[in-house]
Amino acid sequence: MLEVVLGIDIGGTNTVFGLVDREGKIAFSDSIPTVGEKSGEDFFKRLFNEFNEKFENLKDQFALMGIGIGAPNASYYTGTIEEAPNLGWGFVNVIDEIKKYYDVPAVLTNDANAAAIGEMEFGAAKGMKNFIEITLGTGLGSGIIVNGDLLYGHDGFAGEMGHVRIDKNNRICGCGRKGCLETVASATGIKRTVYELLTKMNDDSVLRDMPYNKLTAKNISEAALEGDIVAKEAFEYTGKILGKALSDATAYFSPEAVILFGGLANAGELIFEPVKRHMEKNQLEMFKNKVKVLPSGLPSGDAAILGASALIWHELANK
Amino acid sequence: MLEVVLGIDIGGTNTVFGLVDREGKIAFSDSIPTVGEKSGEDFFKRLFNEFNEKFENLKDQFALMGIGIGAPNASYYTGTIEEAPNLGWGFVNVIDEIKKYYDVPAVLTNDANAAAIGEMEFGAAKGMKNFIEITLGTGLGSGIIVNGDLLYGHDGFAGEMGHVRIDKNNRICGCGRKGCLETVASATGIKRTVYELLTKMNDDSVLRDMPYNKLTAKNISEAALEGDIVAKEAFEYTGKILGKALSDATAYFSPEAVILFGGLANAGELIFEPVKRHMEKNQLEMFKNKVKVLPSGLPSGDAAILGASALIWHELANK
Repeated sequence: MLEVVLGIDIGGTNTVFGLVDREGKIAFSDSIPTVGEKSGEDFFKRLFNEFNEKFENLKDQFALMGIGIGAPNASYYTGTIEEAPNLGWGFVNVIDEIKKYYDVPAVLTNDANAAAIGEMEFGAAKGMKNFIEITLGTGLGSGIIVNGDLLYGHDGFAGEMGHVRIDKNNRICGCGRKGCLETVASATGIKRTVYELLTKMNDDSVLRDMPYNKLTAKNISEAALEGDIVAKEAFEYTGKILGKALSDATAYFSPEAVILFGGLANAGELIFEPVKRHMEKNQLEMFKNKVKVLPSGLPSGDAAILGASALIWHELANK
Repeated sequence: MLEVVLGIDIGGTNTVFGLVDREGKIAFSDSIPTVGEKSGEDFFKRLFNEFNEKFENLKDQFALMGIGIGAPNASYYTGTIEEAPNLGWGFVNVIDEIKKYYDVPAVLTNDANAAAIGEMEFGAAKGMKNFIEITLGTGLGSGIIVNGDLLYGHDGFAGEMGHVRIDKNNRICGCGRKGCLETVASATGIKRTVYELLTKMNDDSVLRDMPYNKLTAKNISEAALEGDIVAKEAFEYTGKILGKALSDATAYFSPEAVILFGGLANAGELIFEPVKRHMEKNQLEMFKNKVKVLPSGLPSGDAAILGASALIWHELANK
């Protein structure tokens, strides 16, 4: 029997799950819509009914060793999801819910932390013991690996790099404060930057024909690749702010690498080049040309399942 | 025989050393001038000759278990001091030098890291596993404890919080860049702030009679306690910048506490009150009223020896 774990990533819209072996091979995966449930309890009932149906026929091939879950607003220490804005479940003890169905070790963490562990076990950070994983999506998430383990801090919520302050502007952040890094360095941030630049610059731009609510980071990448001056300037500014923030992060952590993951990171050199240039420009002398900036090595479709499963594999290995 | 370690703190002017037991009791201590030596090799020869003379008569009472050293520009990973500006030794392999005299485990780290370990073993952070020690002297040093261990990062030089950027002003820093935290939050920083305020404000101040080169953080504290408006404003500004930086550090590390140590921290509530107030004001909602700001619990005269000895005790315990 092949030893596998169940990796579950709970997103605002869909929840993906899959069986993953020690080498990161996905034996089976599926998804269900997350939404439409009144409570976390109902959600897990539906999730495990769905999974059990599929797993029933596979039980003679696979030994289930554990369950790893990535979710928004998740606490590793308490095993709970607390007031996740896109889930509407209030407070859910995820580990307790799982124990109703399976008597195997189970671990919960937030999505960026799961991505970091996934990167270390199966991706671009194999063999690294000190690095920072940055997820550039709607916001900016970070999972920080120190000495081969996730940095959780005193209460389990360390690694909120999206909310360090940059002071360059005072954009209002989803957290209620102003000037957080993710108001610039994220898919939403670069949209805000484009709109700011459209008011500042007089250059023609295809982006002038797009309403704010329809504009995506992908549109901006495509425009930049076509030579659109406003779009290119938006990537330059995003890279400047993120690169400078990474020089501060280097002073704190002295990481071997920073790994960029998620939607905005898919813009490739458009974002990597200015990020690296500004990080180096701002780096303390002792850290210059030492910290790599790398794209994620996780296949984008399976990254969430791999992250969640890496989390529990890592936990099982360290028991 | 009582088990003891030798703690050595190498400063720009003096080097202090002492025998310390597992409970942090100093059995014996002494100091020599650091300066006047052409090389690190000569220095260690003189240091150990001095120590041996004293230790000769104590050998039947004490068993020497190890040696811990705190020094500027010191690397834990390589055991070397590299180009420390105030020592003028260039590159010295400290561990190799020690091995010439003693066949016991020896560990080297920088002064702020030693202070952090000292705080955890013998001071205000007893029982804590996640906290930040900040030394406010000529510059700002930091030792960051993650999961009960010092954060060294990939190359041993993590924890350079003095050089995260604050962007509020562009004061030139000793590191060659501009706007580093220590250009404001340090004994030197508050002097710079006083001089800036003297040009901005019209209020009378005893500090108007002091030349820059004679002004000390202690003068500024004394003036503030007498109600001097400029001096009070200088503490307010220092607390604002440091407090805000601590809210960023909280987002990264989620520490149980921040411990302030060194010259400027001796100003007590003059500095603690504005630091706490601005840290809380800037804190992410999830971290509000959770992170303690505490004074060091190490006796100021013995802190350096206790830190260096705690370093090796900690290492011996984790072997």
